[in-house]
Amino acid sequence: MPEPQDSPTPPVERSLPAHRRAHQTARDLERYADLFAERTRVMRSSAMRDLMAITARPEVISLAGGQADTSTFPPQTFAAQMTRIAQESSAEALQYGPTEGFAAMKVAICGVMAAEGMAPDPEDVIVTTGGQQAIDLITKTLVDPGDPVICEAPTYPGAVPVFSSYQAEVHQIEADGQGIKVDELEALLDRLEGDGRRPKFIYSVPTFQNPAGVTLSGQRRRRLVELAREREVLVVEDNPYGLLRYEGEPQPPLYLLDGGDYVIYVGTLSKILSPGIRLGWAVAPPPVMEKMALGKQATDLCTSTLAQYFALEYFSEDRWRSYVDSLCDIYRSRRDAMLEALERHFPEQATWTRPEGGMFIWATLPSYIDTSDLLAKALGENVAFVPGAAAYVDGQTGTSSMRLNFSGFDEDRIREGIRRIGKVVSEQIDLYQTITGEHKLPEPKARQPASDPAAPGVADEEAAGGDVVPLRRREGTQPGK
Amino acid sequence: MPEPQDSPTPPVERSLPAHRRAHQTARDLERYADLFAERTRVMRSSAMRDLMAITARPEVISLAGGQADTSTFPPQTFAAQMTRIAQESSAEALQYGPTEGFAAMKVAICGVMAAEGMAPDPEDVIVTTGGQQAIDLITKTLVDPGDPVICEAPTYPGAVPVFSSYQAEVHQIEADGQGIKVDELEALLDRLEGDGRRPKFIYSVPTFQNPAGVTLSGQRRRRLVELAREREVLVVEDNPYGLLRYEGEPQPPLYLLDGGDYVIYVGTLSKILSPGIRLGWAVAPPPVMEKMALGKQATDLCTSTLAQYFALEYFSEDRWRSYVDSLCDIYRSRRDAMLEALERHFPEQATWTRPEGGMFIWATLPSYIDTSDLLAKALGENVAFVPGAAAYVDGQTGTSSMRLNFSGFDEDRIREGIRRIGKVVSEQIDLYQTITGEHKLPEPKARQPASDPAAPGVADEEAAGGDVVPLRRREGTQPGK
Repeated sequence: MPEPQDSPTPPVERSLPAHRRAHQTARDLERYADLFAERTRVMRSSAMRDLMAITARPEVISLAGGQADTSTFPPQTFAAQMTRIAQESSAEALQYGPTEGFAAMKVAICGVMAAEGMAPDPEDVIVTTGGQQAIDLITKTLVDPGDPVICEAPTYPGAVPVFSSYQAEVHQIEADGQGIKVDELEALLDRLEGDGRRPKFIYSVPTFQNPAGVTLSGQRRRRLVELAREREVLVVEDNPYGLLRYEGEPQPPLYLLDGGDYVIYVGTLSKILSPGIRLGWAVAPPPVMEKMALGKQATDLCTSTLAQYFALEYFSEDRWRSYVDSLCDIYRSRRDAMLEALERHFPEQATWTRPEGGMFIWATLPSYIDTSDLLAKALGENVAFVPGAAAYVDGQTGTSSMRLNFSGFDEDRIREGIRRIGKVVSEQIDLYQTITGEHKLPEPKARQPASDPAAPGVADEEAAGGDVVPLRRREGTQPGK
Repeated sequence: MPEPQDSPTPPVERSLPAHRRAHQTARDLERYADLFAERTRVMRSSAMRDLMAITARPEVISLAGGQADTSTFPPQTFAAQMTRIAQESSAEALQYGPTEGFAAMKVAICGVMAAEGMAPDPEDVIVTTGGQQAIDLITKTLVDPGDPVICEAPTYPGAVPVFSSYQAEVHQIEADGQGIKVDELEALLDRLEGDGRRPKFIYSVPTFQNPAGVTLSGQRRRRLVELAREREVLVVEDNPYGLLRYEGEPQPPLYLLDGGDYVIYVGTLSKILSPGIRLGWAVAPPPVMEKMALGKQATDLCTSTLAQYFALEYFSEDRWRSYVDSLCDIYRSRRDAMLEALERHFPEQATWTRPEGGMFIWATLPSYIDTSDLLAKALGENVAFVPGAAAYVDGQTGTSSMRLNFSGFDEDRIREGIRRIGKVVSEQIDLYQTITGEHKLPEPKARQPASDPAAPGVADEEAAGGDVVPLRRREGTQPGK
């Protein structure tokens, strides 16, 4: 945060005139420190959000975001939708709405879920201020300080501050090319049960995971849902990207496999319409939903009516599926451009995932490269990424990995961005070799998590049929750097 | 919440076919009960929100809301602003924004505050998803379970669920016609200090208070700020209505008197533009703001970009002041219509406040009338209000009072609404008299808080000059009922 400056305008009335001058010194942390709640000691910033201020500079190619490319949404459609709202329901669109969201919005949301085969009861839907709020409300409803919560390793970097802010005890289970390792999850559940504990929920992004880009295999999905039902453990399925598939066969959402008893579903319009409208949702069993609605009342009364009216116009035209199809075409090309650029510009010691959809590639460098340090150098080259440590609650794992977003920029910018990152990576590797005298590099596994999402899963998937995410390791010659 | 119905559409894929049929029975509260966080046991619903579903029926005249009349905002202005956004910044308006809000939005917010004489540093502003989220983030930042928080009695009904959800120990200090009784506040601070405790903050709506409509006098304002500074206690000044003054001289905001060291300011565009865009803000000292921004990251990433762009268009035209002036004219007439209707239709045992601005009148009936029971009868007459108990954390005080909103409907509807409420009130009084045989009614003070906001304050205000809120008790003949 920039240094605060004293306001140049003197207050109109000043009954305690000494105070304003004392303003600067009074702003010390010490004055307020012992007023802070316990939770603020463990609250962490999500790395992506910190990056936003830096990466807002136009000269920076930020592969650190998680944004849809909103320039693909036709401005004339925006204008037409808003004009219709102005003509037909201006007063309503500017007014408060129900805490759980408008009934028509819930029905439209069920339509989005139907596109992935789900058929929830609209009454089980709560409309939220983005998917982020859904995660927050679920955690608020379920988690007391010290309660166990399980998530993937790496996990969505934006979930880390939520779990921290409710002082959850977070257990991360490694994900490989087929998603979270369900065997290890089961072993953890056993251990917790042995201690008389039950996790409040298992948080998962099973499809085109953020940050790793991997997709949970069909066999593991079924086993995960079985586990949840056998052990009566809730699963929070966060599925922002499910409709953004560029190749391969869809996997059934966990919610579909479970039927909604133990799987709480989180969705968002951020990736298929606009993040700026802040519109997401959760589907939860009524007792949980009721508590979430109480939490939402307290938090922000209701989700933006204007946003809901805008979204309803979008869905009313029934052209939304073709818009999503167009996004898939655009993002597929960008993913391919990034994969090609990685091949071209990243050194042979690097590995990365090859997602079938979504927005992210997860790249892992030799273990002696710390991507948080690397980011500072990358910013010097006007390029940004999310350091891997942001996806781990301990902040100390994943330090040689990075999350790369391919949806936010066109192919030329992506190629240039990857070229710039490749340059600083290569410089670091050269420096390492110079210092250590090594020319044969150490295996990249040394400091990495035992299970790299870039590596293929154990071969438990033959029966489920070919949903192993192909490994994309560098092979052969290095075309340039 | 309506009974959930099983979806008529069979799921596309069913690996665990027994589950869907078990869906109904599985929805019992028992299954999930022991998963809920401790805070959910004390989380209460805000009465206004519960009422919304009922009062959404068009035949109901709801004086229970707290809404601006958004039909006063010209649809052509709505359309023009949105068309300009579509033409000039469609992609940006649909994209994520910074957690703290856009710099231009913070500057515009400082312009709104300047209209009440305040001159905060834009860097100290955080843009929030409505004023409600500001209250939530402040509480999240400061309050651990059991921490003391002080507020007015009665207090904003929407603050009650916030304080509950963070398990605060809430102390309510009575307000009279001049606002919170600062002497009693000081005595409470002494008692807490004697126990080695310090409240995390004092929450106040000093101007045209929600729900009582009263305004804190100038003398008490200065004393409150002095107290905060002497004792190093934070004050949260919630000021949604300050610009909606229909008569009398403005009082300086607490923030202005303090200079921003101990007073955290909460504002909103809900009352001067639109509640449906969910746009509010807080101004806090940097150390507190930093923690609030962390909380906001976790909660919803950022405030709606679309809402901010819409608001920026509103402020860019510099016509916003004249729009607010027009609101004042409209609401002044409605307030007058409600006061006249109360005079006409409410029995002589009733008292009510006579606000100089804002949106609410607080009416108090004989103590043997419970307004929660009365509401059920009022709904039978298609009229609604907020029962007074909603403004008390114990839910057991204020039971013979009600909050009446005069901003949401035109004069005819207001008159008709008050007529209907007056009818059920009179029926209750007649019933009481029939049962008890009393025709001379008991004094209304029996079950009321010792200090009724409808009563004048102790005469500590002479020096400050005439800012005692005039008492509006029934006098003389009863024109009708």
